[in-house]
Amino acid sequence: MKDMLGRGEVIPADEALDRIFSNLSQKLPSEKRLKIVESLGRILFRDVLSPEDLPDFARSTVDGFAVSASDTFGATEGIPAYLNVKYEIFMGEEPDFELRKGEVARIATGGMLPKGSDAVIMLEYAQQVDEEMIEVVRPVAPGENVIQAGEDVKKGESVLNKGHALRPQDIGVLAGLGITDVWVYEKIKISIISTGDEIVPPDKPVRRGQVRDINSYNLAGLISNAGAIPLLKGIFHDEYSIVRNIVEKSLRDSGIILISGGSSVGKRDVTAQVINDLGRPGVLFHGVSLKPGKPLIGGIVNNIPIFGLPGHPAAVTVCFNVFIMPVIRTLSGLSKNRFEQDQRIIRARIAKNISSSPGREEHIGVYLEKRDGEIWAVPLLGKSGLMTTLIKADGMAVIPLRKLGVETGEIVEVRLF
Amino acid sequence: MKDMLGRGEVIPADEALDRIFSNLSQKLPSEKRLKIVESLGRILFRDVLSPEDLPDFARSTVDGFAVSASDTFGATEGIPAYLNVKYEIFMGEEPDFELRKGEVARIATGGMLPKGSDAVIMLEYAQQVDEEMIEVVRPVAPGENVIQAGEDVKKGESVLNKGHALRPQDIGVLAGLGITDVWVYEKIKISIISTGDEIVPPDKPVRRGQVRDINSYNLAGLISNAGAIPLLKGIFHDEYSIVRNIVEKSLRDSGIILISGGSSVGKRDVTAQVINDLGRPGVLFHGVSLKPGKPLIGGIVNNIPIFGLPGHPAAVTVCFNVFIMPVIRTLSGLSKNRFEQDQRIIRARIAKNISSSPGREEHIGVYLEKRDGEIWAVPLLGKSGLMTTLIKADGMAVIPLRKLGVETGEIVEVRLF
Repeated sequence: MKDMLGRGEVIPADEALDRIFSNLSQKLPSEKRLKIVESLGRILFRDVLSPEDLPDFARSTVDGFAVSASDTFGATEGIPAYLNVKYEIFMGEEPDFELRKGEVARIATGGMLPKGSDAVIMLEYAQQVDEEMIEVVRPVAPGENVIQAGEDVKKGESVLNKGHALRPQDIGVLAGLGITDVWVYEKIKISIISTGDEIVPPDKPVRRGQVRDINSYNLAGLISNAGAIPLLKGIFHDEYSIVRNIVEKSLRDSGIILISGGSSVGKRDVTAQVINDLGRPGVLFHGVSLKPGKPLIGGIVNNIPIFGLPGHPAAVTVCFNVFIMPVIRTLSGLSKNRFEQDQRIIRARIAKNISSSPGREEHIGVYLEKRDGEIWAVPLLGKSGLMTTLIKADGMAVIPLRKLGVETGEIVEVRLF
Repeated sequence: MKDMLGRGEVIPADEALDRIFSNLSQKLPSEKRLKIVESLGRILFRDVLSPEDLPDFARSTVDGFAVSASDTFGATEGIPAYLNVKYEIFMGEEPDFELRKGEVARIATGGMLPKGSDAVIMLEYAQQVDEEMIEVVRPVAPGENVIQAGEDVKKGESVLNKGHALRPQDIGVLAGLGITDVWVYEKIKISIISTGDEIVPPDKPVRRGQVRDINSYNLAGLISNAGAIPLLKGIFHDEYSIVRNIVEKSLRDSGIILISGGSSVGKRDVTAQVINDLGRPGVLFHGVSLKPGKPLIGGIVNNIPIFGLPGHPAAVTVCFNVFIMPVIRTLSGLSKNRFEQDQRIIRARIAKNISSSPGREEHIGVYLEKRDGEIWAVPLLGKSGLMTTLIKADGMAVIPLRKLGVETGEIVEVRLF
């Protein structure tokens, strides 16, 4: 089915994404061994199994006195227990003594419990009678204020799973287990091909009628932030043989190919033809019910997703977030369960009425303001095509497919930049 | 005022942070010139003024026909305007003709308007009669579907301000203006000093009673994510002269110093003494009403903030987010107005009742779940000191100072990791 401009059917964004995923057989990148200090944000290629118990001895979680809990049973304000401070436990040392009935050992947070003890009395609840004696007015339970050996992580247990992107605390835990190297997926490489006879690189002079290449640089940043490697292939004339040639070459070194500027209905549009001619299944959709971003082309050649992006920078950003980001994540090996939290979506009240056509998902640049403790999203309205709108925005408010618009004060989801 | 353990007064987190900022005279890092492709996330040292108008010619925002709007005035379904398609405008070229009355020129999105035109008729609203004529059934206004020269950015205008952290679209705009290099602040360096006789590095064997250094690696990741450079200074015995020596050395190469492990009330705690002895004003607070994180020490020596962090990894993460992050941002030159949005705070419903002591801000590890379209924060309860809690968590739910706790279903703020 073609629309009035011969662009083929326009389909909802989720359906378009489904077409990509259902035609893609997931082939993940190869693996690479990295030092943990270089692994921040990288995605685990294997489950990490703990080589040992953590902790590997019973530790105190407080500053206080190691004790056999039974020595405190029945202690009250009226009938305190009096205990002998016989020993001190030094940090990093294994106690070389055993507590006997009525004896306690001074211990700091993280200290190792001595034999004969099974709990720790918090400093706050022990009254020092003299150098050698404390008074305790309430009992401790066995195991109280103690982490048992293996209680945090057991030897052989999977601590972090394949597909997890490493955060600071994850790297801390790896260090804690004595793991200094991890296997991660290689980053995927994404070609950026800029097309259009009017486009010149930023370091070259422009003639009137020409514009500099904005989209390649916007895309390179979006790709880096998504954990992939941008390959800036350059600017190419909008001619079939030229575009075909660079796309064909890029199929050899890229996990995804992005063609910027060739998806409008201008006379020289060749992106769709190139995608269809280079292999199966070729173009999967041409046109989505998304604003901005409607002219998006999506296809697959040799199991490599290829997108033809609209020329408008705001449309590039929206198409990237809605389509290309989930594809990057999946192809990078990221496990699905962290997707949603990683998208930086917050809820805010919209500060103006916005009308929207039904059957079209609309993304509107907004800046955020705090009013009476609530977050408001103020729409940046202006002609489409203005770059400064994207610069002033903190994110994009989303008006879903089935809504006719939103009214002032209504809650919207905002995808933060 | 000392508390019962001789720790000095325990003050609210915001008051502690105020003491740091009011004793700190802001000295920003020096500047550095970077290629725009390397500048993602970096903070601008100067306002960026536009060297030219953007666009520098009137451009079409749609595919269609350039026209003098007056030629369409009065056009209706009943009395259409018939216009001659006399020319075609090629992308990247300055039209070498002038439209006369009744003439239009085929134009694509981004094309330069020819002389004699002041608007563009969208392709969708023009009916092709034959190769040389279109029928138009509604008028266009002057300026419609056109971005005027300088409408997006005027020559000399400040496009991006000093203190702004560069995002992908910002770098796109810089490219669009022909700016290939920017002045940014140098990243600040942050020393991480690990203290404690029980701590060993991850690549060394541990004896019983010892533990590996988790906090240095957690901190290094947190610092990198905050846009600063971690300097791992190593592990030091908890002795006055040793700690003093490494802190003194670190004052020469660091913008902030973090000492991990020396802020509890263990016998060998020396952090506060070292901070007080090395210079004015020294320790500004010792103990905050925060859980976990209560034993935090904060001070300033030679205008360099020094923090003594608790040994517990979850406390390290909370103290970093609440105290160290805002200090890093300020000292890195980041302008204040983006602070709040960068903190990745979302609102969610808490999935369990949580009790909390009043007068204490409490941070609880949670994982997030979507239930009926709403985000729920499920608390990970467990002994403090368990590392796996931090690994399983998606973020920390915050129970404010003045609340006694939260009930199931209540909205809480969650600071995502």
